[in-house]
Amino acid sequence: MRIALDAHGGDYAPDAVVKGIRLAAGEWPDTTFILIGRDETMLPNGISNLEFRLVSEQIEADDEPVKAVRRKKDSSMVVGCQMVKKKEADAFISGGNTGALMAAGLFYTGRMKGVDRPALAPVFPTLSGKGTLVLDVGANPEAKPEHLRQYALMGSIYAEKVLGYSEPRVGLLNIGTETGKGTELTKEAFSLLEKEQSIRFIGNTEARDVLTGPCEVLVCDGFSGNILLKNTEGVAKAIFDRLKQEFTRSWTNKLAAAVLAPGLKRFKKDMDYKEHGGAPLLGLGGPIIKAHGSSDAKAFYNAVRQARLFIEQGVISQIEQELSKHRGVDE
Amino acid sequence: MRIALDAHGGDYAPDAVVKGIRLAAGEWPDTTFILIGRDETMLPNGISNLEFRLVSEQIEADDEPVKAVRRKKDSSMVVGCQMVKKKEADAFISGGNTGALMAAGLFYTGRMKGVDRPALAPVFPTLSGKGTLVLDVGANPEAKPEHLRQYALMGSIYAEKVLGYSEPRVGLLNIGTETGKGTELTKEAFSLLEKEQSIRFIGNTEARDVLTGPCEVLVCDGFSGNILLKNTEGVAKAIFDRLKQEFTRSWTNKLAAAVLAPGLKRFKKDMDYKEHGGAPLLGLGGPIIKAHGSSDAKAFYNAVRQARLFIEQGVISQIEQELSKHRGVDE
Repeated sequence: MRIALDAHGGDYAPDAVVKGIRLAAGEWPDTTFILIGRDETMLPNGISNLEFRLVSEQIEADDEPVKAVRRKKDSSMVVGCQMVKKKEADAFISGGNTGALMAAGLFYTGRMKGVDRPALAPVFPTLSGKGTLVLDVGANPEAKPEHLRQYALMGSIYAEKVLGYSEPRVGLLNIGTETGKGTELTKEAFSLLEKEQSIRFIGNTEARDVLTGPCEVLVCDGFSGNILLKNTEGVAKAIFDRLKQEFTRSWTNKLAAAVLAPGLKRFKKDMDYKEHGGAPLLGLGGPIIKAHGSSDAKAFYNAVRQARLFIEQGVISQIEQELSKHRGVDE
Repeated sequence: MRIALDAHGGDYAPDAVVKGIRLAAGEWPDTTFILIGRDETMLPNGISNLEFRLVSEQIEADDEPVKAVRRKKDSSMVVGCQMVKKKEADAFISGGNTGALMAAGLFYTGRMKGVDRPALAPVFPTLSGKGTLVLDVGANPEAKPEHLRQYALMGSIYAEKVLGYSEPRVGLLNIGTETGKGTELTKEAFSLLEKEQSIRFIGNTEARDVLTGPCEVLVCDGFSGNILLKNTEGVAKAIFDRLKQEFTRSWTNKLAAAVLAPGLKRFKKDMDYKEHGGAPLLGLGGPIIKAHGSSDAKAFYNAVRQARLFIEQGVISQIEQELSKHRGVDE
C-alpha cells in the first residue's frame, strides 16, 4: 500500500507531516509513504518505508483554488492527486487549501460513478468521544435533494467501513424534529431519505443535539454544514479560552485548576478533531483526505490510519456498487 | 404605557411571568401591566399597576401554529396580539409557541410598511457580555437577498434604539470572509448590503467568530440562523454539563470547583440569554416580543425593559421611515 502526503499542507507543515509519517511508518511497515515537497532536506533519516517526490511549487492557503490548481501544475497538491490518478499512490493526504484540494481531486481523479457532487466529510467530535460524520461541510454551498441522498449513502458506507459503526444512523440536519420542517430542500430530501432501504434514516436532527450524537452520519447542504462546523469550533474555543482565563486568574485558582486538570484534559481529548483523523473528500474518484489545517503529528498519523482503512475496505467500489443499484431501482 | 403579558407562555409559566411582572411593576410604576390568563387566581396581590384579562383558551407548545391561531380565538396569545392591534396594549410579550406568536402577530397586527418578511431576532450572548442581534433565526427558513437587506435595516435601528449600540456594525453570516463566498443568496445579499448607505456593513462574518462579537447585527436566512442559535445553545450546554460532571467527580474536585465557582458563575451569566430579554418579532405591525421558552422571572423582567424601549423609541415608525426612504431611492 502506498500513501502520499503533502509536505506543504497545514499550519505546522512540513514538521507535523514528517513527524506524523515517522509515527505511522513505524506502526505500519507494510505501507510505503511518499512525502511530496519542495526541499529534500526535510526528509528524515532512518525510515526505510519512506520515499520522496520533489516538486517545485506549492499552493498557499489563500490561493484562489481553481486558478492555483491550473497554474501550479508542479505543486505538491496537484502532484499528489495525479499520483492517485496514475495509481502511483493509493491515497493522498493534505492539510492544505481545501478548495484547491477538491479542485485538483476533481480535475485529476474525477468523481465516483453515480456521484454528482463530492462532499467534504469531517468527523465531528461528540461527547461520547465516538464522533459523527457530517457531510457536506462546504464543498458545495448549495445542494439538491438528490445530493443529500447521495451524501447519506456515501456517508453510511464510510461510517461503517472506516469508522467502524455497524448500521450507522443517518440524520438530516433541520430546524425542527417534526416531519415537514425546514426549507424546500430539507422537505424533499426527507422524503427521498425515508424511501432509502439501505440506510438507517432516523429523521430530522436539530443542531442543538449534534454533540450528544443522536446519529453517526449527518447530512446537510454545504452552507449549513459549514456554519455548524465553524460554530462548534468557535463556541468550544471561546468557552475553553475563557475557562483558561478563569483558571489562571489567581494562585488559588491555579491550584484548583491543577486538581481538575486530568479530567478536563480527558474531556478536551474527547472533543478533539485530531483524534479522528482528517475529512475524506467523499465522492472523488480516489481516496483523498483533507487533514485539518491545524493538524499536528498525531492528526497526520490518524489520517494515515483512516486512509489505510479507506483503501483496504474498498470504500469507493462499495459506494459505486450501492449507487448503481439504487439508480437501477429508481429508473 | 401598557404592556400585556401571556400568562401561558414558557416552561415556567405562569409563575415566572407573574414574578417577572412583580419585579417590573415595582421598577416602572408609570407602566400598566396586563396579565392575560385563564385563571384569575394567579393574579398576585398588592400590585396596583396590574390588570387581568381573562381568556378561556391557551395555545400549547406543540400546537400547529396557523391552525391554533385560527381555532383558539380566545387564547392568551391571540388576545394579546388583538390588544396590540386595538391599541389596548402598546406591546405584548409571550414565552409560548414561536410559530403561533408569529402567525397571530401577522394576522392581527400585520407587517410594518415596507417589510416583506418579519424576522425573529434574538440577542446572542457574546464573550463581552454585550450581545449580537441575529436575524432571522427561523421565522422564514428561506430568504431572498432583499429580505436580508430589510433585516439589516431593521436590525440596525433596533440595535441602536433598544440595545443602545451607536452605529452598530452589520455582518452577513457566511462560510468565508472573502467577497464572493457562499451561496447565490449570500452573494446577492452582499452586493445589496454593500450599497446601503444607512448601515455600517462590515462584510461576511463566519460562524466561528460570532461569539467574539465582530458585529452587533448579524443577518442570515432563517434556516442558517436557527442552526447557529441551536448549535450555540447545544455546544455550550454540552460543555457545561460535562464540566459539572468533572467538578463533582470526587470531593477534591468539588473543593477545587468551589474555588473556581465565582468566576465561572460570572462567565455563565455573561453567556446567559436571560440577561438580554426576549427576541422581537421585527417587522410586525406592533411591538411583539418572544421570550425564551425557558424564561425565568428575570428574563420576563428584561423582556419588559426591552418592550418599554421598543415603544418609547418609536422603533416601528423609525424602521418604516427608513425603509420608505430606501424604497424611494431605489425606484
